[in-house]
Amino acid sequence: MGKVNLEYLARLRKVMKDHGISATIVSNTDPHQSENPPAHWRGREWLTGFWSGNGTNGTAVVTDNKALCWTDSRFFIQATQQLEGTGFTMMKEDGPEAVDLIDWLVEDLKEGDTVGIDGMTFSVAYAQRIEQECNDNGIKLVTDFPLFDYIYPDRPKRPENKLFLHDESVVGETVDSKMSRLMTEVKAELANSVLISALDDIAWATNVRSTEDIAYSPIFVSYLYVDDNKRIIFVDESRIPEDVAAHFKKYNIEVRPYDSVLEFVASLPKDRRLLIDPEKTARGVYDKIACTPVFGGAGVARLKSIKNPVMLQNIETAMDKDGVALVKFFKYVEENAPSGQLTEVGLGNLLRDLRLADPACVDESFHPILGWNAHGAIVHYEATDETDFTIEGDGLLLVDSGGQYSFGTTDITRTVAVGTPTADQKRDFTLVLKGHIALSCAKFPEGTRGAQLDVLARQYLWADGKAYYHGTGHGVGFFINCHEGPQSIRLNENPARLEPGMITSNEPGIYLEDKYGIRTENLIVVEPWITTDFGPFFRFKTLTMYPYDKNLIDLSLMTDDEIRWVNDYHKEVFNRLSPHLDNDEKRWLEEKTSPLRR
Amino acid sequence: MGKVNLEYLARLRKVMKDHGISATIVSNTDPHQSENPPAHWRGREWLTGFWSGNGTNGTAVVTDNKALCWTDSRFFIQATQQLEGTGFTMMKEDGPEAVDLIDWLVEDLKEGDTVGIDGMTFSVAYAQRIEQECNDNGIKLVTDFPLFDYIYPDRPKRPENKLFLHDESVVGETVDSKMSRLMTEVKAELANSVLISALDDIAWATNVRSTEDIAYSPIFVSYLYVDDNKRIIFVDESRIPEDVAAHFKKYNIEVRPYDSVLEFVASLPKDRRLLIDPEKTARGVYDKIACTPVFGGAGVARLKSIKNPVMLQNIETAMDKDGVALVKFFKYVEENAPSGQLTEVGLGNLLRDLRLADPACVDESFHPILGWNAHGAIVHYEATDETDFTIEGDGLLLVDSGGQYSFGTTDITRTVAVGTPTADQKRDFTLVLKGHIALSCAKFPEGTRGAQLDVLARQYLWADGKAYYHGTGHGVGFFINCHEGPQSIRLNENPARLEPGMITSNEPGIYLEDKYGIRTENLIVVEPWITTDFGPFFRFKTLTMYPYDKNLIDLSLMTDDEIRWVNDYHKEVFNRLSPHLDNDEKRWLEEKTSPLRR
Repeated sequence: MGKVNLEYLARLRKVMKDHGISATIVSNTDPHQSENPPAHWRGREWLTGFWSGNGTNGTAVVTDNKALCWTDSRFFIQATQQLEGTGFTMMKEDGPEAVDLIDWLVEDLKEGDTVGIDGMTFSVAYAQRIEQECNDNGIKLVTDFPLFDYIYPDRPKRPENKLFLHDESVVGETVDSKMSRLMTEVKAELANSVLISALDDIAWATNVRSTEDIAYSPIFVSYLYVDDNKRIIFVDESRIPEDVAAHFKKYNIEVRPYDSVLEFVASLPKDRRLLIDPEKTARGVYDKIACTPVFGGAGVARLKSIKNPVMLQNIETAMDKDGVALVKFFKYVEENAPSGQLTEVGLGNLLRDLRLADPACVDESFHPILGWNAHGAIVHYEATDETDFTIEGDGLLLVDSGGQYSFGTTDITRTVAVGTPTADQKRDFTLVLKGHIALSCAKFPEGTRGAQLDVLARQYLWADGKAYYHGTGHGVGFFINCHEGPQSIRLNENPARLEPGMITSNEPGIYLEDKYGIRTENLIVVEPWITTDFGPFFRFKTLTMYPYDKNLIDLSLMTDDEIRWVNDYHKEVFNRLSPHLDNDEKRWLEEKTSPLRR
Repeated sequence: MGKVNLEYLARLRKVMKDHGISATIVSNTDPHQSENPPAHWRGREWLTGFWSGNGTNGTAVVTDNKALCWTDSRFFIQATQQLEGTGFTMMKEDGPEAVDLIDWLVEDLKEGDTVGIDGMTFSVAYAQRIEQECNDNGIKLVTDFPLFDYIYPDRPKRPENKLFLHDESVVGETVDSKMSRLMTEVKAELANSVLISALDDIAWATNVRSTEDIAYSPIFVSYLYVDDNKRIIFVDESRIPEDVAAHFKKYNIEVRPYDSVLEFVASLPKDRRLLIDPEKTARGVYDKIACTPVFGGAGVARLKSIKNPVMLQNIETAMDKDGVALVKFFKYVEENAPSGQLTEVGLGNLLRDLRLADPACVDESFHPILGWNAHGAIVHYEATDETDFTIEGDGLLLVDSGGQYSFGTTDITRTVAVGTPTADQKRDFTLVLKGHIALSCAKFPEGTRGAQLDVLARQYLWADGKAYYHGTGHGVGFFINCHEGPQSIRLNENPARLEPGMITSNEPGIYLEDKYGIRTENLIVVEPWITTDFGPFFRFKTLTMYPYDKNLIDLSLMTDDEIRWVNDYHKEVFNRLSPHLDNDEKRWLEEKTSPLRR
């Protein structure tokens, strides 16, 4: 690999010289700031050789005599190995040896130098930070340096997958209604038009989806423009089948070529006040805007995050289907683990196949995490052929996975014992479960933020001198992204308030390095509870339907209320899933959900 | 009153005209941004006639044809009444009809106008906001318009109370040690000198106190300058008795006249980088600084907030003394309430006398809140002769009070039943108590912020559809201010981390308008607990020593662990207080602290 990258680097340096560019910053994102961009925009991975099928986080900097690639601690080992011999050196963007990329750059350059970037692959906000630092140091920034057009002739094409409709009856709201609510938000921000770049927001607003543009997310590469009189979607005609064309026509959504967004924003009349989200909009788009840009857009993400009653009804179907796949999966694990033949990778494939066997499931919602014993302690573990563990002897198997169903997105983690669990494993599992239950049972007044409730999930671990460092809950989309904002339940402050209809995960855990990991995750949704003299109060409803491993529960640590909660939940799981199971599976689930007794 | 204020207003307008001032803003604070300034700086109260013995919050604006006084919702009724006929109109600074003072001002004025303020009574930060808005609107701001020098000839003098030493053996740290740690913080903020304006920080750094400068806080009006070679306190010589003079000399603290701080900062050499806190330093001082000002200073407040082991040992003495006064007080209430002769004001006086009977108690730590039934539901209730309730029949008495002992500052709230409490009252009291206990028992890792723990105190009320809106815990000083930062335990985010040695209150409550209020408050201190593979963990230790009213506890709502916690606490209270009680009091306390049993 290394040699090829040396040649790419030489090509790049020649082009930089030709264009009078002293340094370039190479991002690995698309014009929509997608978490996981299509191959077309993975130029940084191609250039540096630091890559993976599921994407890597990294930003490269190239000057005439230096080539560096920044990444975060998840990737330090992988990047060091993959960058060997490529001409690139790894730099750390977090941890004690972190170096700020922009600080490094302005330090390395001298007054009068020029930095060139491809503005289409930088957000307005990030480019602004670079520009500010450059200006302060007498360095020029040019944002129209599309380096890969020059050096990457065999660049993968942009996605060309067909669009399809997300049925209005499943979504419970017409495009007209969404557009009207959208324009209310736009006007609240003192704008009169909006250009949406975030792909999940566009899929939500149009009730249209596609698969495979973005791994694990049924969204599609496009822009959406809306004002009081016009709705334009920028997506190539060739991707639009007849029913979707009719749908666009019905809702007065004009279709224009994806690339033409640039000339469109350049043609907007001066009096147009165009709302754009500086975190999601490409600097390359911003550079072309001829009218007045207005920075904002949190209102749109909030609209999307609040699921209506029809969606909440439908997501129960998704949860039932998901629960059935998991019954088949964990029954198989239990029956076959003693063979000593099961592996993490093999089980991941099985789980995918079991989910996709249902036609309503179009994809997994993220790359599944299957961690046996020590691998369970690696929070973002991804089993590969090289790392694959065989399930042997006693231990804990952590399985974090989910599906993209047209009825909603699922995300569930269960940790199960294979063989006989130790007392410590049971204690840790039970402390995690107690926190998971406490959060599930929380009741709270309107206005409460996720960070206020986070401690409920952590309190029992803390009281045992233990802790986990990831968030307790991330927002979850509805047949869109498995991670969405604005809501979250985390240690860190997040000003977003929890509102009825918002879905989050509830996933406390505990990770003992080189030993085992435990995580228990359901999806929960905020729902109205009561209104008193003190105003409206909310509570959570649990959406996910699959039992906890009773073998891992230490009853001596549980209160009567907690035991009752588990028994009630298990009863509901059985009632909901059993109609979809064969007799053998039904008997198995009946045993798994039979009441806990002291 | 009104007529006098009309005359003051006429005087002010004449002076404004003479100085070419179109509008003036009149604050009610001192050059140290004290919460409760000395009479000398209460010019706004004098000018407008809106005042009280314990101080009012308000800011006036006077133009050639308008005179307004802003205040917050606590004072709307009082201000409306007192401003009648004064020429001033009340304006609301919070609530749905709030008007922003600065917005109003720039709207009312026209380009080219001049706003004049007395820079000594505005913080750097607030004046900067005014200046920015004025600049944006072509209005000039002058900050050297000392209006009261012209119109208030009989203005009260600055405080002249004598200083006294706060014994080093009580404080557990020499001034040298404090100054050295102070300079470390100063250098961490890239400064080489510091001017402290916050009076509690100065009292802490010098181990010196005074009484009556500031009501309820044993601090004194002064400035403190420190660099590596010089320590200067700006306080008038006449206030310094011999032992304090010797103390200053011992620690190389030069004494200069209070007023001379202005010429001092004007004489500082250019290379001096002077740390000042923009929230605490007067704009009038800032205007004179000849060297480079550096904004910061949070480090100093943090040093003060962390109490050392000697202080924590001594505060137990303060708590014992406070508990003894409360035993005498509540025993008197119980024995005399049936007479129907007790009143809120009378009990407040009794409580003050009982505390001050101990020579170590130099003052109350705030104006006590004694609320009988409906008055208990007014969170900041202050009994006066006009509002005074007589304690009659059945009901709840809420008593929130504290003392300034040389061994530490106390702040405690107890709610007690007189006669027979209702089931609702017992339920509410018990839900508050459960939250109070849950916070007391919290264990948490290093790095935890107060806002993360706040829900522990609220959870049981929330689960009953009830809420309170004040903070659960404020920081508490050591024989300084009863309210101090940076730590707090509140709904709102506060980035300050809870560190061992920080004292906060733990005071959940519930308030039913026109019925009753319940609050239960102890002081608690963060202390190290254990260090595990997950790092250091902390817990709270309860400092306050006085029993909860067992008649108000509904045992059916309490867990066994909670009952055990109360019984253990009550046992400790008895053991700590009984040696200081006579036999009669001892028997009474024994009954009050006897174990709860189901």
